[in-house]
Amino acid sequence: MVIGHECAGIIEETGSEVKDLVPGDRVALEPGIGCWRCDLCKEGRYNICPDMKFFGLPPFHGSLARQIVHPAYLCFKLPDNVSLEEGPLCEPLSVAVHACRRGNISPETNVLVMGAGPIGLVTLLAARAFGAPRVVTVDVDGNRLSVAKELGADGVVEVSTNMQDIPKEVETICNVMGAKVDVSFDCAGLSKTMSTALSVTRAGGKVCLVGLGHNEMTVPLTPAAAREVDVIGVFRYKNTWPLCIELLRSGKIDVKPLITHRFGFSQKEIEEAFETSAGGGNAIKVMFNL
Amino acid sequence: MVIGHECAGIIEETGSEVKDLVPGDRVALEPGIGCWRCDLCKEGRYNICPDMKFFGLPPFHGSLARQIVHPAYLCFKLPDNVSLEEGPLCEPLSVAVHACRRGNISPETNVLVMGAGPIGLVTLLAARAFGAPRVVTVDVDGNRLSVAKELGADGVVEVSTNMQDIPKEVETICNVMGAKVDVSFDCAGLSKTMSTALSVTRAGGKVCLVGLGHNEMTVPLTPAAAREVDVIGVFRYKNTWPLCIELLRSGKIDVKPLITHRFGFSQKEIEEAFETSAGGGNAIKVMFNL
Amino acid sequence: MVIGHECAGIIEETGSEVKDLVPGDRVALEPGIGCWRCDLCKEGRYNICPDMKFFGLPPFHGSLARQIVHPAYLCFKLPDNVSLEEGPLCEPLSVAVHACRRGNISPETNVLVMGAGPIGLVTLLAARAFGAPRVVTVDVDGNRLSVAKELGADGVVEVSTNMQDIPKEVETICNVMGAKVDVSFDCAGLSKTMSTALSVTRAGGKVCLVGLGHNEMTVPLTPAAAREVDVIGVFRYKNTWPLCIELLRSGKIDVKPLITHRFGFSQKEIEEAFETSAGGGNAIKVMFNL
Amino acid sequence: MVIGHECAGIIEETGSEVKDLVPGDRVALEPGIGCWRCDLCKEGRYNICPDMKFFGLPPFHGSLARQIVHPAYLCFKLPDNVSLEEGPLCEPLSVAVHACRRGNISPETNVLVMGAGPIGLVTLLAARAFGAPRVVTVDVDGNRLSVAKELGADGVVEVSTNMQDIPKEVETICNVMGAKVDVSFDCAGLSKTMSTALSVTRAGGKVCLVGLGHNEMTVPLTPAAAREVDVIGVFRYKNTWPLCIELLRSGKIDVKPLITHRFGFSQKEIEEAFETSAGGGNAIKVMFNL
Repeated sequence: MVIGHECAGIIEETGSEVKDLVPGDRVALEPGIGCWRCDLCKEGRYNICPDMKFFGLPPFHGSLARQIVHPAYLCFKLPDNVSLEEGPLCEPLSVAVHACRRGNISPETNVLVMGAGPIGLVTLLAARAFGAPRVVTVDVDGNRLSVAKELGADGVVEVSTNMQDIPKEVETICNVMGAKVDVSFDCAGLSKTMSTALSVTRAGGKVCLVGLGHNEMTVPLTPAAAREVDVIGVFRYKNTWPLCIELLRSGKIDVKPLITHRFGFSQKEIEEAFETSAGGGNAIKVMFNL
Repeated sequence: MVIGHECAGIIEETGSEVKDLVPGDRVALEPGIGCWRCDLCKEGRYNICPDMKFFGLPPFHGSLARQIVHPAYLCFKLPDNVSLEEGPLCEPLSVAVHACRRGNISPETNVLVMGAGPIGLVTLLAARAFGAPRVVTVDVDGNRLSVAKELGADGVVEVSTNMQDIPKEVETICNVMGAKVDVSFDCAGLSKTMSTALSVTRAGGKVCLVGLGHNEMTVPLTPAAAREVDVIGVFRYKNTWPLCIELLRSGKIDVKPLITHRFGFSQKEIEEAFETSAGGGNAIKVMFNL
Repeated sequence: MVIGHECAGIIEETGSEVKDLVPGDRVALEPGIGCWRCDLCKEGRYNICPDMKFFGLPPFHGSLARQIVHPAYLCFKLPDNVSLEEGPLCEPLSVAVHACRRGNISPETNVLVMGAGPIGLVTLLAARAFGAPRVVTVDVDGNRLSVAKELGADGVVEVSTNMQDIPKEVETICNVMGAKVDVSFDCAGLSKTMSTALSVTRAGGKVCLVGLGHNEMTVPLTPAAAREVDVIGVFRYKNTWPLCIELLRSGKIDVKPLITHRFGFSQKEIEEAFETSAGGGNAIKVMFNL
Repeated sequence: MVIGHECAGIIEETGSEVKDLVPGDRVALEPGIGCWRCDLCKEGRYNICPDMKFFGLPPFHGSLARQIVHPAYLCFKLPDNVSLEEGPLCEPLSVAVHACRRGNISPETNVLVMGAGPIGLVTLLAARAFGAPRVVTVDVDGNRLSVAKELGADGVVEVSTNMQDIPKEVETICNVMGAKVDVSFDCAGLSKTMSTALSVTRAGGKVCLVGLGHNEMTVPLTPAAAREVDVIGVFRYKNTWPLCIELLRSGKIDVKPLITHRFGFSQKEIEEAFETSAGGGNAIKVMFNL
């Protein structure tokens, strides 16, 4: 099985009915192919289509390859000022954009992001691009929080992994936000991050669950429901590539600082790349260049 | 402190600016008075106003009294064919109506109701009135389920209190529904009911958390989020009395079967009433008549 | 060019990948095939896909034929209690269902239907099924209004074709409705019907433009906008067949009274059928049976 | 009758229950007081409350005065970096913000603004703040279009007042936009501006009618409806002051260039001010300073 679902490349050949692409075009690829037959596809929620064919999800090969075949309508041309390195970042950014849509982020929503890993960081960038007046990022790792700060977080809060610290951390988050938390994104998906988000979000706000940490969570769901804080599920993305590319083109979002390491595509470098990525050091996004 | 927040009565006197009510009018009372100053009131979500004055919520007296003073705009005239006994039932029915609105119930939503207590039963009735093609009710108590059946549930499922039975109960619920579960209402608010609801609801569906059982719940929130099953908080109601009264007037909903016991307002009868209500026998709604 | 886009039939043969249909199945056909590539298809609005292939819309043949080839996912099985005559009525009923969805019809919306032609009549039926407490139908033709009455309109209003009568007709409509008009459906699409609908609909309500009468209209759009009455465009339908079939199966909607004439499929009968349909007498729906 | 409804001032005295304001506070005033009793107020649409008391709308005096009495909850404190001159501009900006909310403007909506008068200009500014990637402004007056350009329009189109020029102007607008028009704001409200907007907006888009030019319009409503282009009414605003003030504070919107003339509050200067404002020269906003 070939893995990988974040990629960009150059068109080599097109099918006879393809009109909008020609060999040589630089494109970013959306990795999932909906069935377009089920109720969910028909109502515009193809991201949760049960029959989706997705790069690297068995039995479908992924995109970590020199050549792949893909439907033309899922290949999106990159403008001249967006590089082949930035193209693959449309994938994680798509998660963030979809999350911001589901959370209805606008100039009226102060945003909390739980987690400063890659998804937390792109969520911060996307929330900013959707106009969020204040974005605060929370993590257990001070280094990651420094990156969040550099990427534009208005404030950061370093927290523990201890459930008992939630009340005082909620207080700190409120102080750092200096305003109500309208929408929280839990980009970790743990009992603690979700409990914090549910507690700190204002009455009538939303908690978007983006990270897929724990299957089972122990969380104060009832007090949140009694304030009509909704929990919004976020899974992948749909119709996001054109917007992501536009955000990169216009400079409203710069994903280049997220690319911390680059490798070639030899056996040796591939191994190094995976070690770097798994190492957990300061790696955010590790890029292969052919 | 006087308790009570479900009531109807007869207007004795009105303020000088009241135009739509006269002494002798029979009215049902909406028990909460929003502040109409905060953001939530202004945007139409007065049910979660932090400064709400609510019958029986300290320091505000409730409605279990012979006379009360209340704003005219929260007193809703009862039509001739709706009795003073049905009027108070607008309150629990309002919870159900608000839940159906938040769950967006229509002729396109198959509904699961977890719990066949008073709120579960009115939710069943309201879901039907909102056009739900199929409504299935789940409870641990066979007697309550019989009532649900009589009130129009298409199917009922008796379940255990054991978390480990969830997988097979999910299967049974699916079979009894005979279709996808689009929206679930958890009218109990327990780890088990919520876990069942989260597991059985279709991708892209909603679980409305209505009951306030456990503060903390241990639930499979992440797998639900990964199918974009949203958890919608439901707290009280807003703008529901006119609709409830219309549903009673038109006969689309009949709440009379829910009134299982009636008492006068003497000291002795009051005590009996509370014992009956707490007894947990076959009491659904226990009514005081002056 | 073969015309026709309302049809049902019996499966004769299926493609090799079709799993849910077998020869002999009775099915109703959704007539339009979206491209599933454009933004509108991807976001669930395939009804306005610019590349739709639609029965009878050049260069695509219609369904007035003994045999047609159609994608399996657009062929919907009819339950035993829904006849091959009712099946084709899913098409006009789909227009009505889509209109009710766009108008957000529920037990909270009093509905006005301008026009008692076939589309006006199915809109009345659909509004009722979506729970509308009151539905009033308006037309210039008393006979059609009698049909509307028989099909369940709470009230009917006969109007003129004279623009100057609008103010007094608005008053009559209000009286017959006996409540605010929350949503109006203009199933004619004329300057007069639209002007009436815009004037009579309550502040914050909606006017759904369903009929395609006049291209240009002279209408009081500004006073309506100043009451935030929105004009909602309604074009065809999407994802409606399953709901329509369920409404027919459950008996919530009975379309049989709409079938006023039946013809065989000989040359002579076909000519008679078109004359009957165009005649404008009491014909509502004219059916061909093979 | 005193007129005027755009103002800011300094608190002189507060009622005994007012907690959040003290004499000396600089505030901007929201000019309309909802009844908080009607269905529209209760559901959060107080801007279309039929019993609203609005500055300068008979029998209520306006704000063009040295002192006025107003409810505390409609007086919004100005931050240090927002001047008493910018404060009154929250009123027209509120119209624009409300329009952007109703039009659901985001980083995904290319915006067309018909009209470059004061409301058209603030709509351009607000659309930008809501993230619109491209904003194009249309007017008959080249000078006004220069102002739009300076304020950040991506493109401007000078048009005629001749209805027959619409087809070619639609083409020009499309070329200048260089993309689909997702949402149009008609800030003039004339047959021609509305016809242009209805024709140029993409299938599934919105035309927000903001200007109140002509009562009756002759417009191609049916072809627009057949592409499901909705016409969204926009009337005044609700809950907009906090956002407007935040947009001014953060610098996301700068309204200072809109203030073209300043006058004192003597009889003579008042007359000059009204002449300037009516003169139609290069005046955009004419300010009185006490």
